[in-house]
Amino acid sequence: MRMSQLLAPTLREEPAEAESDSHRLMLRAGLIRKSSAGIYTYLPLAFRSLRKISEIVREEMDRAGGQELQLPIVQPAELWVETGRWYEYGPEMFRLKDRHGREFCLGPTHEEIITALVRAEVRSYRQLPLLLYQIQNKYRDEIRPRFGVIRGREFIMKDLYSFDRDEAGLEESYRKMYEAYSRAFHRCGLSTTAVEADPGAIGGDVTHEFMVLSPIGEAQVVHCRQCGYAANVEAAPASAPPARPQGAPATEAPPAPRKVSTPGVRTIEDLVRFLGTPAHAILKTLLYEGDGRLVAAVIRGDHQLNEVKLARAIGLSSVQAASPERVREVTGAPAGFVGPVGLNRVEIVADPWAMALDEAVTGANEEDAHLVGVVPGRHFSADRVTDIRLVVPGDPCPRCGAPLDRSAGIEVGQIFKLHTKYSEALGATFLDEDGKEKPVVMGCYGIGITRTLAAVIEQHHDDKGIIWPVSVAPYHAVVVPVNVKDRGQIEAAERLYHELTGAGVETVLDDREERPGVKFNDADLMGFPYRVTVGARLAASGQVEIRRRSDGRDVPVSLDEAASKVREWLREDMEALQPR
Amino acid sequence: MRMSQLLAPTLREEPAEAESDSHRLMLRAGLIRKSSAGIYTYLPLAFRSLRKISEIVREEMDRAGGQELQLPIVQPAELWVETGRWYEYGPEMFRLKDRHGREFCLGPTHEEIITALVRAEVRSYRQLPLLLYQIQNKYRDEIRPRFGVIRGREFIMKDLYSFDRDEAGLEESYRKMYEAYSRAFHRCGLSTTAVEADPGAIGGDVTHEFMVLSPIGEAQVVHCRQCGYAANVEAAPASAPPARPQGAPATEAPPAPRKVSTPGVRTIEDLVRFLGTPAHAILKTLLYEGDGRLVAAVIRGDHQLNEVKLARAIGLSSVQAASPERVREVTGAPAGFVGPVGLNRVEIVADPWAMALDEAVTGANEEDAHLVGVVPGRHFSADRVTDIRLVVPGDPCPRCGAPLDRSAGIEVGQIFKLHTKYSEALGATFLDEDGKEKPVVMGCYGIGITRTLAAVIEQHHDDKGIIWPVSVAPYHAVVVPVNVKDRGQIEAAERLYHELTGAGVETVLDDREERPGVKFNDADLMGFPYRVTVGARLAASGQVEIRRRSDGRDVPVSLDEAASKVREWLREDMEALQPR
Repeated sequence: MRMSQLLAPTLREEPAEAESDSHRLMLRAGLIRKSSAGIYTYLPLAFRSLRKISEIVREEMDRAGGQELQLPIVQPAELWVETGRWYEYGPEMFRLKDRHGREFCLGPTHEEIITALVRAEVRSYRQLPLLLYQIQNKYRDEIRPRFGVIRGREFIMKDLYSFDRDEAGLEESYRKMYEAYSRAFHRCGLSTTAVEADPGAIGGDVTHEFMVLSPIGEAQVVHCRQCGYAANVEAAPASAPPARPQGAPATEAPPAPRKVSTPGVRTIEDLVRFLGTPAHAILKTLLYEGDGRLVAAVIRGDHQLNEVKLARAIGLSSVQAASPERVREVTGAPAGFVGPVGLNRVEIVADPWAMALDEAVTGANEEDAHLVGVVPGRHFSADRVTDIRLVVPGDPCPRCGAPLDRSAGIEVGQIFKLHTKYSEALGATFLDEDGKEKPVVMGCYGIGITRTLAAVIEQHHDDKGIIWPVSVAPYHAVVVPVNVKDRGQIEAAERLYHELTGAGVETVLDDREERPGVKFNDADLMGFPYRVTVGARLAASGQVEIRRRSDGRDVPVSLDEAASKVREWLREDMEALQPR
Repeated sequence: MRMSQLLAPTLREEPAEAESDSHRLMLRAGLIRKSSAGIYTYLPLAFRSLRKISEIVREEMDRAGGQELQLPIVQPAELWVETGRWYEYGPEMFRLKDRHGREFCLGPTHEEIITALVRAEVRSYRQLPLLLYQIQNKYRDEIRPRFGVIRGREFIMKDLYSFDRDEAGLEESYRKMYEAYSRAFHRCGLSTTAVEADPGAIGGDVTHEFMVLSPIGEAQVVHCRQCGYAANVEAAPASAPPARPQGAPATEAPPAPRKVSTPGVRTIEDLVRFLGTPAHAILKTLLYEGDGRLVAAVIRGDHQLNEVKLARAIGLSSVQAASPERVREVTGAPAGFVGPVGLNRVEIVADPWAMALDEAVTGANEEDAHLVGVVPGRHFSADRVTDIRLVVPGDPCPRCGAPLDRSAGIEVGQIFKLHTKYSEALGATFLDEDGKEKPVVMGCYGIGITRTLAAVIEQHHDDKGIIWPVSVAPYHAVVVPVNVKDRGQIEAAERLYHELTGAGVETVLDDREERPGVKFNDADLMGFPYRVTVGARLAASGQVEIRRRSDGRDVPVSLDEAASKVREWLREDMEALQPR
C-alpha cells in the first residue's frame, strides 16, 4: 500500500474529545472517527488490526473445539420475554419495531437466541459437548460511553457458549476457555491478569475476568505480588480480623454508651474532625432494600460496603440503598445519624471487622447526635456477621496473607459458568445416556474485540505514538524515502517495497511529497514495528537504516540485505508472542 | 471436524416453509435456521461458505485497489435528513431511538455515512481516487421477505464506494469494479450475466446488474443468444417498428372512426373475444400522474407499459397510475374505455409501435363504447412518440437485430455511477489541481454475500442435494467409514482424515454410528465435493473409493494413494474456477 492512497488521516493536534491515551492515539493515527456517541467508523488501519485480533481469537476458539456461526443481531422480543430479561434489561437495550409493529432488540448478548437454537437442534447426549461462537457487533445503549471504543454503544465482540451434559463437562469447557483466552491475549501482545470476579445478576458461581491493568480501567482489581492471587475488588474476600488478645473475659456489663451532640455532622470525615476519633473506630450503618426486605449493614468507618457481598449474604441477587425517606421512617433519624443500637425493627448484617472493635462511635438514630463508647456484641448484636466490605490495599491476601495491592483494570474478557440458568428458563433439554431428559449445562465466554484493540494501544505506546505488537499491527513495516525527488532513493524504496511485500511483509511505502520530519512523525504515530529509511546514506555507502519501533534500535544495512533483516526481526518478534 | 460434533442438523423431510430449491436445501442440509421473518441464523456450514465468498470478494476488491473499513450499522438520522432520504425511504428502513430519544436507523445502505466521512477527511485531489468498502450486515424491512436468504431483512452485503476527481476517473473505477465483479462471481462458481439496468431513484445514468438466471428470480432479463447483449427488461430499449410500405401518400382524409357498443368489455382479452380483432391491432391508453402532471400513455394492446421509460420520457424520476376517480374525471369514462381520440386536456405519449398501426381499435372515452377504424396520426396525434414499452421475447436485439430471449434473474450484484448526487447533497468537495473546489465524483457497488450463497446453491444442486463449487464449499471432502465397528475401516478412515487435513484438504470424518445409506445421503445433501468411502473393498483389496459429487465419477484407489488423488482433483477443480 502506498501512503499517498491510504485513508489514514493523521492529526497533528491533540483531539479535544480524547479521554484516554488509546482514544487520543486512535483518533490521531487515523484509526477511528466518531459517528455518534459511542459509535465509530473503523478506518482501514484499525480494520486491519481488528481482523488480526479476530483471527487470533478465531484460531484459539477453533483449537479449543469451537464452531463459528452467525446469530441474528435483530432479535425477536418473544425469546427475551421467556427468560424475563426483556423487562430486566432496562434502557441499556436498544429496542425497535418492524413495519408490522413486532418488537425486536439489537442483541446486547446472545444467551436467549443460542439457547433457543440448541433447544431446537440438540436432542441427544451424543451431540454434546458443543462450543458455538460468533464474532459480531453487539449493542448496549450505555448511559455514558467513554474512552473511545473502550466503552462504546456499538462494538465487536466474540461470544462463545458451551453446552455440556453435566458439571464435569462444564468444568472442562471452562478450563479450555480459560486457556484459550490466556493464549489469545498473549498472542495479541496484551498482558492480562485473570481475576476472580462476581457473576452478579447473570447468575452462576464461578467467573473470571481478564483484566488489562491500566489507570483508566473502570474495574478495581486487588492482587498479590507474593502468590499471584488476583480478584475483582467486588469479589475478593476480606480475611478475618486478627483475634482479640485473650484477656480476662468481660464479665461486667460495660458502661452504657454516651450520647454526644453532633450538629450537622453527617459524614465519617466530619465526625473524625469533630470528635478526633479515627475513622477505623467509627461504625457506619447503611440501610438497604431488596425484594421487599430491609437490612442495616454495619461496617467500619474506614471501610466501604460491597453491595454484591451484602446481597449474597442475605440470599438476594441485588440490593439497593434505601431512600432518605425510608431511612428516616425506619430509624427516626436522617441518613448520617443511623446506628445499630436500638435498631430493633431491622435485620442487622455486620462485618466481622466492625464487630471486632473494643468500642466504637455510631449514629444515635436521632438527628444531630451520635453515641460514643458503643461495644459491639454488648450494646447491639448482629443477626449475621459476615464479610460485606470491599477489600482495601494492604489487606492480607486471602490465599497467602501477604499485603494486597490495588489497581484499576480494563476488562477485555470474561468467562462465566451459567450452569442451567438459561437452559431451564427456555427448556433446552437433551436425552442423556441413562434415558433421562436433562437441561444442558452452559457456560458463556466473551472477548471485546474492539476493546482489546484499544487496550493493546493503552498498553503499547509512548509520547510519539502507538507501538504495535507485530501480531496485530495493521502493517509490519514502512519504507520511507527521505527525498522523493531523488531518483536513486525512490527506485531503491520501490525495490525494497516490492521485495518486502513479495516476502509477505505487509508494507506501506511512504511516497508522499512531505518533509522527512512529517513522515518520521507519522511513522512513529502510526506505530509501524519497522521503519526502513532510504536517505543520503544510500548514495554515500549503499546503505539504508532499519529502526525497530519497540526499542528504538537502529541499524544500517546494505540495500541488498534490508529485506531479509526486516524479515529476521519480524520472525523473532512474532515468535516472542507465541504462548509458551 | 468430526461429523458427530458438527452442528449441521440435516432434515429428512421437506420443510414446508421452503419457497425455492436453495431455501429448501439450506434448511435440509443444516445451513440456516429462521429466527424471524427474513432473519436467519447461519450455522457452521453456511458460515464457512460465507467466509469463503467474503474472502474471494475481499481479494478482488483489494486487487482493484479497495481499502476495507467498517462503518456503523446504527446511523444517526441527521445525515439522512441532509440528503432527504430519511423521509423518502419509507417503511423499508428500520428506525429506532436511543435512551435520550435521538433517532437512528439500521443502515440499509451507506452512501450518506461514507460521503460524510470523505467530506471530513478528503481535502485534496492528491487523496483521490479512493475505493472504500466494507462487508457487513445490512437491514431492509422488506414487506415480503422471500426464498430464505435471497430476500431477507438482515443480510450480509459488500458495499464499495468510489471517489474520483472527475468523470474519467469514475469511468475507470466503474470499469475496475465491473471486472472485479465478473472475476469474483466466476471464482465462486457462479455463472452471471451482466445486464444493463435502470438506475431508478438512486440516480445516475449507467448501471449494471449481475444476474443469476433462475426461474425464481424476481427480475426480468432479456438477452440475445446471437451477440450476448443482455439487459434488465426495465432498461432494454425496443427497436423501431419496421417502416411502412411506401405506397401512395394518404392524401384523402380517412373515414371517421366508427363507435361500437361494447358493454362491460374492459380488458384487451375481452375486446379480442368480443370484436375478433387481434390484440396487436388494439391500442391501450393508460393515465399516469407524476409531480402534478397527467399523461396518457398509448401502447399496442399486446405490449406492456414500461413505467421507468414513461417517467424518463417526460423527465420525471417516477410516475404512478392515476386513480379510477381521476380517470373518470378527466376522460368522462371509466378505465377500460379510455382512448386518445379527442383526449385534448391530456399530454399524450405514444409508443412508436402504436403509431405504426394502419388502423386500430381504441376506447371511446365513453362507458361501454369503443372506436374502430382509428388511424394513428390522423384521428389523434401524440405530443411525444417514444419507446415506452417493455421489450418482449422475439423483439429484435437492439444491438444485432436477432430475436431476444427473456429469463428471470436473481440480482447478486449491482454497480452504479452516482456522479455527484451525494457529494453535492452533503457538500463533499475537494481542492483540485487547478485550485478549484469541486464535488467528488462517486460510484457505488454492491454484492449480496448471503444472496450469492443462495444463488450458488440455486445454480448447483440436484435431486439429492447441494453440489458445491470447491471454492466456496464449507469443506472439501468427507471420509465415510461404512462400518464404524470395523476396526480396520475406522483406523484407515482416521489415517486418511489426518492425511487430508494435514495436506490442507478441509475434511469431515463421518464417525457417526449410522447406517451407510444415511451417511451417503447426508454427504450428497451437504454437497461435499469429494467423498472417500472406506468400506468392504478395504479388506478385500486395500482400496477405498473416491467419488466426485459434481459428475458422480467414482474411482477405486489404494488407501495409500487416496489423499493425493483427492488433492489432485481439488487442484484441478480449483484451477477451473480461476478467471481466464
